[in-house]
Amino acid sequence: MKILVTGFEPYGKTPINPAEQVARRLNGSRIGEAECSGRILPNTFFQCIDSLKQAMEELAPEVVVMLGEYPGRAMITVERIAQNLNDGTRYGLADNDGKRLQGDLTAPDGPAAYYTTLPIRAMVLAMREAGFPSDISDAPGTFCCNHLMYGALHHAATAGLKTRVGWIHLPALPEVAAMTDNLGMPSMSVETALGGVATALEAILANAEDVNQPVPSRLQI
Amino acid sequence: MKILVTGFEPYGKTPINPAEQVARRLNGSRIGEAECSGRILPNTFFQCIDSLKQAMEELAPEVVVMLGEYPGRAMITVERIAQNLNDGTRYGLADNDGKRLQGDLTAPDGPAAYYTTLPIRAMVLAMREAGFPSDISDAPGTFCCNHLMYGALHHAATAGLKTRVGWIHLPALPEVAAMTDNLGMPSMSVETALGGVATALEAILANAEDVNQPVPSRLQI
Amino acid sequence: MKILVTGFEPYGKTPINPAEQVARRLNGSRIGEAECSGRILPNTFFQCIDSLKQAMEELAPEVVVMLGEYPGRAMITVERIAQNLNDGTRYGLADNDGKRLQGDLTAPDGPAAYYTTLPIRAMVLAMREAGFPSDISDAPGTFCCNHLMYGALHHAATAGLKTRVGWIHLPALPEVAAMTDNLGMPSMSVETALGGVATALEAILANAEDVNQPVPSRLQI
Amino acid sequence: MKILVTGFEPYGKTPINPAEQVARRLNGSRIGEAECSGRILPNTFFQCIDSLKQAMEELAPEVVVMLGEYPGRAMITVERIAQNLNDGTRYGLADNDGKRLQGDLTAPDGPAAYYTTLPIRAMVLAMREAGFPSDISDAPGTFCCNHLMYGALHHAATAGLKTRVGWIHLPALPEVAAMTDNLGMPSMSVETALGGVATALEAILANAEDVNQPVPSRLQI
Repeated sequence: MKILVTGFEPYGKTPINPAEQVARRLNGSRIGEAECSGRILPNTFFQCIDSLKQAMEELAPEVVVMLGEYPGRAMITVERIAQNLNDGTRYGLADNDGKRLQGDLTAPDGPAAYYTTLPIRAMVLAMREAGFPSDISDAPGTFCCNHLMYGALHHAATAGLKTRVGWIHLPALPEVAAMTDNLGMPSMSVETALGGVATALEAILANAEDVNQPVPSRLQI
Repeated sequence: MKILVTGFEPYGKTPINPAEQVARRLNGSRIGEAECSGRILPNTFFQCIDSLKQAMEELAPEVVVMLGEYPGRAMITVERIAQNLNDGTRYGLADNDGKRLQGDLTAPDGPAAYYTTLPIRAMVLAMREAGFPSDISDAPGTFCCNHLMYGALHHAATAGLKTRVGWIHLPALPEVAAMTDNLGMPSMSVETALGGVATALEAILANAEDVNQPVPSRLQI
Repeated sequence: MKILVTGFEPYGKTPINPAEQVARRLNGSRIGEAECSGRILPNTFFQCIDSLKQAMEELAPEVVVMLGEYPGRAMITVERIAQNLNDGTRYGLADNDGKRLQGDLTAPDGPAAYYTTLPIRAMVLAMREAGFPSDISDAPGTFCCNHLMYGALHHAATAGLKTRVGWIHLPALPEVAAMTDNLGMPSMSVETALGGVATALEAILANAEDVNQPVPSRLQI
Repeated sequence: MKILVTGFEPYGKTPINPAEQVARRLNGSRIGEAECSGRILPNTFFQCIDSLKQAMEELAPEVVVMLGEYPGRAMITVERIAQNLNDGTRYGLADNDGKRLQGDLTAPDGPAAYYTTLPIRAMVLAMREAGFPSDISDAPGTFCCNHLMYGALHHAATAGLKTRVGWIHLPALPEVAAMTDNLGMPSMSVETALGGVATALEAILANAEDVNQPVPSRLQI
């Protein structure tokens, strides 16, 4: 069994991205029987989807867990749904190539949204029980995180893959929350975030009877 | 031109619902050339959709704006997207018939989500300019508001209606935020909420060249 | 019985100050048997204290209630204590004369702090019961509001006045919270704020057997 | 040079107190030239002051830094001022002996408040520069933390001690923020909190020319 964990590069006002830090630490590690590969993706619209597809082709993972930072959130949040529309201007954010999207669709012929195919409720409950503040989220934003999550699920759906695909958002790192512009923002250390993500990965595997079957019933999400 | 504005009954820890108060005040009023009808819907899964469909059949409105309360939000939020899945247990909430949903779909054969067909960006900008704190939201929750918004958009889509359909969330009323359990929650008076909603309705009409045409391009949302 | 209510001018990022608006509306009104005079004070260190003293001399009020805006608070807050030290630089704020204080004392020979002499618990409970979200606060900030509150209490203490003196903080107005820089900030309409302050003034009078006696026991605060 | 660091026991809804954890880890450690002693104090009114006085007598520290948990705060906060009045009922909290105070004074003959004698601005700036989210606070609450801080400063003042005395508040631990009742609360790991406190202690020593002199000018706070 192979798990692909991805993280984004620094972007915007985030010089150190917890998603990158956690993905690097998980690269080469084992979660139960599964091998973990960590990859860092560019924070640019459409390129990030291409890079992810390439990594999926190369590694053929049964599980893809993408990580991102969500500034302002205090908990590790597992995303339920990704939408087609991009609206980075809401945050005053351009991607790392300077591209600003407002109203553009990731897949012009795609559906409005996709549900994750990870057992998000089990992941959240496992993290809480292990002492990591965690919750389900229904809004991965409208910037690169949502864009990549949608792109990955659209790829899995259109290519007929059985791969389980989903997204975990991490709070900002303490060193980022300590910057003048960010003061007041909740934070989480990379060690705590790593512990939470590892626990969530274990919870995915504990539901692994399903991983080589068609995507789980929506009751799990 | 006819506008149908709906509001929900009291529910959960909300003995007075700003959505009901604003819908009652708008009932029988005029917004520009348009007549406004206000209807109060039951806060119960599926019944609320049936009641809405009945009102839509009866009144044949060109525009349907549904109102709900979103406790904890400080701004008037215009919802961009509604999802199929219901998860009231996340909030510890049963509907007014005691029904608790977790993972059930509103339309088992429906898509994961629908986009609103209202010009939400124009609505938000008009409210801000008129002095009403307002924003776009990408998450109408997973309780009755999202359920009804999805149900209304699913109905319009499957019945081939040109009706413009969308949702505005209002902050809790001051008298509700003053209750011991709710202290600290932001609030907005019914007069301010009413002013914001009226401004938003005017912004819909100002984009009215479209209202008898197929749904607007997604760039508006 | 005479009540003096003061409000501050606009300042910083607040082009319309709810404190000014409420003080203007209360000017010339009656609360029970008491006459209300409203005065607007300059938002400048030390000058505001001088202006207040002048108004107190002129009107000889039994009760002085000063109003200010506290951006970011969702509730009407009644302040318990004011401190000697000023630190406007914490907020990046200069007063309306461009003066920036950091660590300067309002009264170099004064005590570190004074307790209000208003029955703040009764005021808060009365507001909540009447439907106005309200709470006690132990921190009026370190800008002009705290400065004036300290100055007024220091004046009453050193001049041996029996005048009851205290401070009520109001949330930002909706039109201020609708400005781009302030989005997300809770707000309260001037009508709601006015209703809350009037209720608080009634609660002061309902404890009026004390008003011509020495300051109430600290149990009230 | 000796530093006494104190932490509180668990209390209320906090089964693991970061203040206790950090004080235990600092016990026996060195900060620059200084020896650190860590002591755990009971979370009970008045007894905590007695225990602190005993530890101060025994150790004769030049610096006393007391630690507490402030649930809901995202940053490490250094307190500027402590007040005489206790009001635990505001939080619905009894101390660990079941005692509930509302309006009682810690020192009936004491002043309304004391300023800390630590260089709090330097401590906060040092923590931020080292990557720990931190701020000055003007409100240590009205429960046991404020009570002990006031008691310690009153003791130092009335006994004529040159000891520098102050308080650092820590966010809740992740495992506490993961409890159902606390979900949404910001948190900080014990390692991050420890790093921040150690940095703050270094900043105190870097201003140590003053430590054997009378208390620093108020400009430092």
